[in-house]
Amino acid sequence: MLNFTFYNPVKIVFGKGQIATLPSLLTGRRNILLTYGGGSIKSNGVFSQVLEVLKDFKVAEFGGIEANPRYETLMKAVQICREQKIDFLLAVGGGSVIDGTKFIAAAAKFQGEEPWDILAKSAPVVEALPFGAVLTLSATGSEMNSFSVVSRTTPPAKLSFASGKVYPQFSILDPETTMSLPERQIINGIIDPFVHVTEQYLTKNVSTPLQDRQACAVLSTLVEIGPKVLTAPKNYDLRSNLMWCATQALNGVIGAGAVQDWATHQIGHELTSTFELDHAQTLAVILPALLKHQINNKREKLAQYGKWVWGLQGNDEVAIATQAIAKTEAFFRSLGAKTKLSEYGIKASDHAGVATRVMAVMKVPFGENRNIGLQEINAILAIAQA
Amino acid sequence: MLNFTFYNPVKIVFGKGQIATLPSLLTGRRNILLTYGGGSIKSNGVFSQVLEVLKDFKVAEFGGIEANPRYETLMKAVQICREQKIDFLLAVGGGSVIDGTKFIAAAAKFQGEEPWDILAKSAPVVEALPFGAVLTLSATGSEMNSFSVVSRTTPPAKLSFASGKVYPQFSILDPETTMSLPERQIINGIIDPFVHVTEQYLTKNVSTPLQDRQACAVLSTLVEIGPKVLTAPKNYDLRSNLMWCATQALNGVIGAGAVQDWATHQIGHELTSTFELDHAQTLAVILPALLKHQINNKREKLAQYGKWVWGLQGNDEVAIATQAIAKTEAFFRSLGAKTKLSEYGIKASDHAGVATRVMAVMKVPFGENRNIGLQEINAILAIAQA
Repeated sequence: MLNFTFYNPVKIVFGKGQIATLPSLLTGRRNILLTYGGGSIKSNGVFSQVLEVLKDFKVAEFGGIEANPRYETLMKAVQICREQKIDFLLAVGGGSVIDGTKFIAAAAKFQGEEPWDILAKSAPVVEALPFGAVLTLSATGSEMNSFSVVSRTTPPAKLSFASGKVYPQFSILDPETTMSLPERQIINGIIDPFVHVTEQYLTKNVSTPLQDRQACAVLSTLVEIGPKVLTAPKNYDLRSNLMWCATQALNGVIGAGAVQDWATHQIGHELTSTFELDHAQTLAVILPALLKHQINNKREKLAQYGKWVWGLQGNDEVAIATQAIAKTEAFFRSLGAKTKLSEYGIKASDHAGVATRVMAVMKVPFGENRNIGLQEINAILAIAQA
Repeated sequence: MLNFTFYNPVKIVFGKGQIATLPSLLTGRRNILLTYGGGSIKSNGVFSQVLEVLKDFKVAEFGGIEANPRYETLMKAVQICREQKIDFLLAVGGGSVIDGTKFIAAAAKFQGEEPWDILAKSAPVVEALPFGAVLTLSATGSEMNSFSVVSRTTPPAKLSFASGKVYPQFSILDPETTMSLPERQIINGIIDPFVHVTEQYLTKNVSTPLQDRQACAVLSTLVEIGPKVLTAPKNYDLRSNLMWCATQALNGVIGAGAVQDWATHQIGHELTSTFELDHAQTLAVILPALLKHQINNKREKLAQYGKWVWGLQGNDEVAIATQAIAKTEAFFRSLGAKTKLSEYGIKASDHAGVATRVMAVMKVPFGENRNIGLQEINAILAIAQA
């Protein structure tokens, strides 16, 4: 096992009716800025539910945070924080709203010239506004980690930062708030945590048998309940289990002491940035292709995954690994996800540009073995094409 | 899934050489009280290692915390905290030292007359001294939770408390510090986390498929590595995996949203208190007997456990549950643990006294179904006798 530090101070308040606990979680806050995305929380009643329990607090609103939150938008909220002396942010929404709120929190207290440097130049986050979250779309795990991904329009870029200063103080997870999501979002909410786990698990073996099993615990549960959620989207037990899987997929437990990859995400971010695919849509396309390309480096864990999650048997590691990748892709397709670039109208002639832009962000070869460079990205995109 | 709150702010610093990070974790502390148990940390070099890295800090010492920490002893440390204006406690040892230090931390700031009330009357812990831990014996999980068990000599009692104020600020887990432990402690360190998991897992099914699998992840890993650690106690990978299993067994993840039992612990505490058995020794005796007695209430989860951890097959839940209990007891015995009261010289004529004393503490029937009372304790002890 590798040496590691694990620290995750987010208080999770889970279950139906838990939005009612908001006032006790906000004791002492004076000027709250409620951040949210499009209008879905208004149409599904969550917005009015939150405002109702906060009627004794001073609450300003900032809506319109995009599905891939944009720097230009978030900086408007930063302006409001400074002008109105906001002392607490309350994100109501999914991973994009929470990611965006993390950036607002950091940027509002940023001492440098240009908060974009937090993303582009890894400028340190010395201080941040405190914030909490009411999660209404489970997928990214942002409700219980310190990661944030932010996009910029001109030039197109999708960059990430992480800081111990941007853990939510609390996150309320009420599965009932997720029941009105459209099917596309449910599918994304199954695939996103699935790939979050594989990025931390399907890597080089450094003797982490507990983390390997904890990873498979999430994967097997997603395989078990994913299709059922699509059939019975109003089932509380299924929605609660899906919600908790997404949180546990990226809160640091699975990756502690293990080798991590994240190459699928790095390539996927660029596809979102250029072609406006949903984050999870890019993962469903890139993961199977990347696993096929890296099968020799990943075959030990792929074979273990094949046995533990898919019940495959045998002693030929490569054969089981190959079947496991096929099972993974078939699972994504069974949910209704596309797994080929061509299905999104992306052409082979687009690959070179994608690869170049990924390397413009990454600068050096990446992935668990630091072996994914320009040539390898092109090869992975070729596998993913059709 | 049940509604739940999950909050665990302990920073874990894991791996070889991590004791060297102590100064950075103690920045700003002026008067540190180092708490420890017997002399083992002196003979294995950990004590001098800790003092060496703390040479620029003012450090007082308090040794002699017992394997089941005693109120009378701990109150002497409370006296030192008050007299010397201690502002941070550093526990160096196993679960007993950390449990004891949690109580010292709470008692030093207790505003009532008699700190024993924290244990005996659930007096609220409003404030506590901050503390950290260097773990040298992995078993109890105390390094990453807010539970503490304290004993008293006259009259004999072993009571517990929990408070959000007594999470360690940090815990350093260096597997190398555990390598000189005697075999009995290694065996305890396998069984203790095993039973911590079963207390949170082998209960009524309330739809927690992820937590069920996370529980089995710890159990299967203990089954896999437990015997190997006994054969190769100096193997770093094995010791690190065993150490992390013990932490993950009782940090709140597995029990979140699930029904919990803890009846085995309640009966076991009394056996420790009266007969001075090690905590884990009592669990190895009581768990199989309790599972046999409660097989009808627990059979669904027992059957799942039998399939997932022991690879049992079939459709007869009771048959698989019965085999799973037998496998559990055989596993404990294979490690060298005793599983019968008679093996510790305890007689059938002792049972009534044990049962009475357990109920004197519990007052009302306990366990997940609140159905373990005087008669049931006697029945469980009868099963455990020989």
